[in-house]
Amino acid sequence: MRVGVIGYGYWGPNLVRNFAQTDGVDVVWCADLRAECRSLAKKRHPQASVTADASDLFNDETLDAVVVATPVATHYSLVKPALEHGKHVLVEKPMAASVREGEELLDLAQKKGLVLMVDHTFIYTGAVRKIKEIVEAGELGNLYYFDSVRVNLGLFQHDTDVLWDLAPHDFSILMHLVKERPKCVSAMGSDHTGSGFADMAYLTVQFPNHFIAHVHVNWLSPVKIRQVLIGGDRRMLVYDDMEPSEKVRVYDSGVTVSTREGIYGVLVDYRTGDMRAPKLEFREALSTECAHFVECVRLKKTPWTNAEAGLMVVRLLEAAARSLAAQGARIPV
Amino acid sequence: MRVGVIGYGYWGPNLVRNFAQTDGVDVVWCADLRAECRSLAKKRHPQASVTADASDLFNDETLDAVVVATPVATHYSLVKPALEHGKHVLVEKPMAASVREGEELLDLAQKKGLVLMVDHTFIYTGAVRKIKEIVEAGELGNLYYFDSVRVNLGLFQHDTDVLWDLAPHDFSILMHLVKERPKCVSAMGSDHTGSGFADMAYLTVQFPNHFIAHVHVNWLSPVKIRQVLIGGDRRMLVYDDMEPSEKVRVYDSGVTVSTREGIYGVLVDYRTGDMRAPKLEFREALSTECAHFVECVRLKKTPWTNAEAGLMVVRLLEAAARSLAAQGARIPV
Amino acid sequence: MRVGVIGYGYWGPNLVRNFAQTDGVDVVWCADLRAECRSLAKKRHPQASVTADASDLFNDETLDAVVVATPVATHYSLVKPALEHGKHVLVEKPMAASVREGEELLDLAQKKGLVLMVDHTFIYTGAVRKIKEIVEAGELGNLYYFDSVRVNLGLFQHDTDVLWDLAPHDFSILMHLVKERPKCVSAMGSDHTGSGFADMAYLTVQFPNHFIAHVHVNWLSPVKIRQVLIGGDRRMLVYDDMEPSEKVRVYDSGVTVSTREGIYGVLVDYRTGDMRAPKLEFREALSTECAHFVECVRLKKTPWTNAEAGLMVVRLLEAAARSLAAQGARIPV
Amino acid sequence: MRVGVIGYGYWGPNLVRNFAQTDGVDVVWCADLRAECRSLAKKRHPQASVTADASDLFNDETLDAVVVATPVATHYSLVKPALEHGKHVLVEKPMAASVREGEELLDLAQKKGLVLMVDHTFIYTGAVRKIKEIVEAGELGNLYYFDSVRVNLGLFQHDTDVLWDLAPHDFSILMHLVKERPKCVSAMGSDHTGSGFADMAYLTVQFPNHFIAHVHVNWLSPVKIRQVLIGGDRRMLVYDDMEPSEKVRVYDSGVTVSTREGIYGVLVDYRTGDMRAPKLEFREALSTECAHFVECVRLKKTPWTNAEAGLMVVRLLEAAARSLAAQGARIPV
Repeated sequence: MRVGVIGYGYWGPNLVRNFAQTDGVDVVWCADLRAECRSLAKKRHPQASVTADASDLFNDETLDAVVVATPVATHYSLVKPALEHGKHVLVEKPMAASVREGEELLDLAQKKGLVLMVDHTFIYTGAVRKIKEIVEAGELGNLYYFDSVRVNLGLFQHDTDVLWDLAPHDFSILMHLVKERPKCVSAMGSDHTGSGFADMAYLTVQFPNHFIAHVHVNWLSPVKIRQVLIGGDRRMLVYDDMEPSEKVRVYDSGVTVSTREGIYGVLVDYRTGDMRAPKLEFREALSTECAHFVECVRLKKTPWTNAEAGLMVVRLLEAAARSLAAQGARIPV
Repeated sequence: MRVGVIGYGYWGPNLVRNFAQTDGVDVVWCADLRAECRSLAKKRHPQASVTADASDLFNDETLDAVVVATPVATHYSLVKPALEHGKHVLVEKPMAASVREGEELLDLAQKKGLVLMVDHTFIYTGAVRKIKEIVEAGELGNLYYFDSVRVNLGLFQHDTDVLWDLAPHDFSILMHLVKERPKCVSAMGSDHTGSGFADMAYLTVQFPNHFIAHVHVNWLSPVKIRQVLIGGDRRMLVYDDMEPSEKVRVYDSGVTVSTREGIYGVLVDYRTGDMRAPKLEFREALSTECAHFVECVRLKKTPWTNAEAGLMVVRLLEAAARSLAAQGARIPV
Repeated sequence: MRVGVIGYGYWGPNLVRNFAQTDGVDVVWCADLRAECRSLAKKRHPQASVTADASDLFNDETLDAVVVATPVATHYSLVKPALEHGKHVLVEKPMAASVREGEELLDLAQKKGLVLMVDHTFIYTGAVRKIKEIVEAGELGNLYYFDSVRVNLGLFQHDTDVLWDLAPHDFSILMHLVKERPKCVSAMGSDHTGSGFADMAYLTVQFPNHFIAHVHVNWLSPVKIRQVLIGGDRRMLVYDDMEPSEKVRVYDSGVTVSTREGIYGVLVDYRTGDMRAPKLEFREALSTECAHFVECVRLKKTPWTNAEAGLMVVRLLEAAARSLAAQGARIPV
Repeated sequence: MRVGVIGYGYWGPNLVRNFAQTDGVDVVWCADLRAECRSLAKKRHPQASVTADASDLFNDETLDAVVVATPVATHYSLVKPALEHGKHVLVEKPMAASVREGEELLDLAQKKGLVLMVDHTFIYTGAVRKIKEIVEAGELGNLYYFDSVRVNLGLFQHDTDVLWDLAPHDFSILMHLVKERPKCVSAMGSDHTGSGFADMAYLTVQFPNHFIAHVHVNWLSPVKIRQVLIGGDRRMLVYDDMEPSEKVRVYDSGVTVSTREGIYGVLVDYRTGDMRAPKLEFREALSTECAHFVECVRLKKTPWTNAEAGLMVVRLLEAAARSLAAQGARIPV
């Protein structure tokens, strides 16, 4: 399988390195507009051709797949021709800059029968894979809430806000675990530096039932926190990505609700129990992801993070962005 | 100074014990409707008279002050006669069940020239006192945000929701540190157990400038978190109340904003530096608070947590409750 | 059951309070040489008689038991007459200042058929009780080692060194868990302040098999650490007493040894697995201990921390002290 | 500057990669006895020649320096001919398998006027560099003790014990910070798996004054701990290498000793104060180290981890090994 990568900046080199180490894959093209990035790619991967012109990849009939690792504003204009030229595509998160763009790419991929996968890397970590397994096995019972805090002192992006930068991670994990379709999104935030882009935001996603999701993304935190709490009526879970090894802890704790005659009607009590930290697989997530992409292309399987999943993340982002502009108004998804 | 305490349930015993150990104070009355609470009070404090009738305290002309440690629904009907009988009052948080009640009590205390203090205990901790000192000294610069997470697996209250139970702590700390008057409040939450009371809530307080405050209160968390992040343009601060000793950490970190000619207009960069955890005073907060109440009565000083401060917390709670009922609508304070 | 307490200084008040709250127990005497301690005891416990003369307790024929909470140097001279007068005794740790004293007290108690129990409080914590249960159930397999770190910035004792102050805790936990009799002790330490008493010490206890125990006690540590590692060939355990709730964690980790033909002879590999933090009982240890003492007296049962257990701790302390003086020489126990 | 590397197994690839990225350095040789390691080296670094014969490097007159990254047993037989052929040498830790070997290599390097540097990587970390700076500035005052815990569940080495595997790190850090020459070493440990090699050890290093150093190395710990405590009479320091960012914390805490008339003679009291976590440089230690080696060769400077430093570590290891065999006997250094 012959792969070409567009964008050799921050994340592209990781993709090239991982694809280069994936069995049966040759990275044959590296495209980047910047000469210094091209020469770095050439030095590290002499077997690949470099180019400033992405259409060299589209026009290479021997190329099977294109990996797009460029800023989100350019995704649509690079993924579309790739699909039109019959290439399978792995695209950086978020999939597109708008729902409209995302829908068009999804349609095109389906029409062409091509794999269009989105690089939501967290889905391929040992931690999220274990959480998925726990949730699907019903260990947590009915889910009460999903609460994610993703804050640190961030390198400011000059072309995007904290919402589009960080929230794709949380939204992709949330929608990977939850089957219900979200109803609406509210977002509050602030731009403290006058850059024109929000540097912190609080996002609430409502669902048809009582399940509620909340995400705090922040580029202005002195400490790095990557913590997700998931509450269920049977058990509860903490996913702390800053823990070196015990990232996932399952608490045999919860509340017991019993109906009771009398003035209160409902009696709520809490219970505590053992905690368990399951062993996690330690393979690099991106390595798992690259192998998964290759397998999906070969065996015509649906990726875990397919275009539908990627589009759902864009729907949530777009709704959140509109809510942020409207000071927290509830925007339907 | 002769003090009487109404309510000898969960918190009352701590107040009695601390006042009994305060120099120059005699606890002469303990009132409680429950016989078993009265007999426990009598056993522990044989020098105090016990009664089921709070008016025994109001009618005791030798009594200087009344401490009210009963459920919030009863505050108004106990504080009002206490003030009318000329007693200084220390009342449990929150001060009252509504802004209307709170305003009336404030007016009455002012008219009578009596001390009406609210038991916002956190204000008297070594940690919050140090944070106040740091903020007032301008160490953090202009404040960007206040973010508080106060979650644990809670003993459910049967007569209140998580908002009225936990958020008074965060609102009192917030308003102790910030001089600006809040503009409006939004609240989202959920009642997962069908008890009729929200068990988790996300509260956003907006201010006239870009400063933003957010509070997450939750009775359904498997882990106990008591963490406040305060961001400023010079430094940032973390207050982790679960830390045994280094509860307050000040980070010499932040962002630098510079105006620049060119396409972006504003250039934002981040900087990191040393962290410092100042030594905190370790005295029990309630002991400091009781001594402060006595001093304010004697020297006619204004308490740190006076009726104005207590009323502001009730204003925020009432606005948050209305927003919660209206699914996050922005409610002016 | 009528109890008298000798020593109302640092720890005595906790013992009096807990016995006073134990069903069926009356604390009828408090003895202390210091007038201010006697008057504090009288104020808090008006039903008890106070005295400066411990023989008032020995001579009170209605008294069932004596609790000795005085400095270790006085234990022998107080416990001995108490036993001679037919009183059951609970004595502060360590039981005695020397093995010779301890042996004599043990003999006397046995001869008189009286309960002589040592206040090794940690044995009665939910954490150590759970660890005992885990070890006895064979969950850890054969034990490899016991490693304890008990360090903090200590209030210096003026009449003892760090060894006699802190190591009784570790030695009592160690010998509560391990059935084998220790062979010898080595100790290295230092007196940095010229006080004549070691302020830090490293203690190694050797056993007939390959099991090894090590204890680090230190009054000069900037941070408080209370951590025990216990390694076994099936599982391993960490007991971190500074953790607010998950004090005990059991790791399904270890090493696998297999014999193999070839140059190395023995092949050692490691395996990792889940971690589990069992729920612990949260009752105050001293309350459990006081109830246990009463039960042992009434039902003529052997206490968990009986005189034999207490004497073994003194044997280890005495050997360690001799090794410390001899710069780490191995001293048989 | 032309460099050749011998040994392309576990650590060698990191050295090759870092030297390849160092300005003005060409890695021209990779030697390894294993064909698969040579082919991996060739694939990753096509510009370098590979060989199974180390003497190809010695005989290459254009080669300036040799890097030895092979098991310790082979160091002497590789470093010696490299020096004899006039090559500067960077050798893996520990420098040699015995003091005798180490002394011979040191002499040879001095005679030839060549740089012989030992790869004690920790010395080049931002954390240890900052600690060195703090100690040298006298911030801690006179040093009381150095206590290091370096434990984890280790991949067992088949040709060495835990002492020779892990303790070089602690001994190199210790001797980098302390000017005094150690007096003697005691070591206790155990071999639980019957492999013939100790899997855990407790090492005590005594100095002429009251300063004492202790190291706990362990391959059988369920948790990974990398913590050093350094006590001084002015301040104390904790270096926790598992912390993601605040690895070094300085406590303005300690003890105050005052001489006093009366029964105790010496009065010791403790004091607590602020804690400070200085900002650390985040550059990869090995990159700093490679640049330092190049600089020392070019400018004829003495490396921080020169042959004397490396030999001192071997002296401590050899003494510790003898003490371990003699069950803790004190062995002079």
